[in-house]
Amino acid sequence: MLTFAPFADADWPEVWAAIEPVFRAGETYPFPRDIDEALAREIWIQSPRFTYVARLEDGTLAGTFTIRPNQMSLGDHVANCSYIVAEAARGRGAATQMCLASQKIAKEAGFLAMQFNLVVATNEAAVKAWTKSGMRIIGTIPNAFRHARLGLVDAHIMHREL
Amino acid sequence: MLTFAPFADADWPEVWAAIEPVFRAGETYPFPRDIDEALAREIWIQSPRFTYVARLEDGTLAGTFTIRPNQMSLGDHVANCSYIVAEAARGRGAATQMCLASQKIAKEAGFLAMQFNLVVATNEAAVKAWTKSGMRIIGTIPNAFRHARLGLVDAHIMHREL
Repeated sequence: MLTFAPFADADWPEVWAAIEPVFRAGETYPFPRDIDEALAREIWIQSPRFTYVARLEDGTLAGTFTIRPNQMSLGDHVANCSYIVAEAARGRGAATQMCLASQKIAKEAGFLAMQFNLVVATNEAAVKAWTKSGMRIIGTIPNAFRHARLGLVDAHIMHREL
Repeated sequence: MLTFAPFADADWPEVWAAIEPVFRAGETYPFPRDIDEALAREIWIQSPRFTYVARLEDGTLAGTFTIRPNQMSLGDHVANCSYIVAEAARGRGAATQMCLASQKIAKEAGFLAMQFNLVVATNEAAVKAWTKSGMRIIGTIPNAFRHARLGLVDAHIMHREL
């Protein structure tokens, strides 16, 4: 079981260590592969409405997620979330636990639904975890993502009401 | 037939006069209904990669459109566009002409596809114009938009390769 807490400044070194290799890999997020710490912090900490960290029972960082409105005013009742599982916590259902936790937090904050705009189709573990969390694919964008190893691949839009 | 030109500062009063009532109406775009000129200018002029104006043969503003990458780096080969037809030019096929022009401009700029993220489903004239322009609905988001008159309504995601 994971525990969840709002991000605090002291978490940044661990969070950056978890998200940096994922951004560098260029297989799941569209951010520049040579992203620097300042831009990563803007994307992951400053611009979202909420950022959370998840920890294993021994305190190790298991992952982190963000919640933000998916659109401005007349579309700001739909939450958009991003998740990264730390290397040390892979294969233990952390993604699903984080997704379910984010849904609860988003719902309590007044969001009516959750939407992901760019779930890279080759990221099968993610699609599986989000489906298990009640998200469903409502559309697939052909060739939406330039995967670092595979070139142009499709991406799904996933959605659920909260 | 419309003529198209990149936005120039001198166009702003006409552009603002065309887009302000559309934003105030709250029926097609998610921006705040009480948006001020500075935020509108940020959204329509500063943040897009390109902004164009369309004019009727007599020089009257027929509409305006913007082109921007729909995602950051690894998704920046997909263009996202927004269009507004000026009141004076409604019902003459201006939306379709602008959409086709934007596709040509986007393709020449290196974009491989075009995607709209939030086509309000009750905006039937838009859905028709975009369909006529070769865009197809690849998914529908339930209750994605808080329409000023109709409350929660669906929105389509539309896409085409260029």
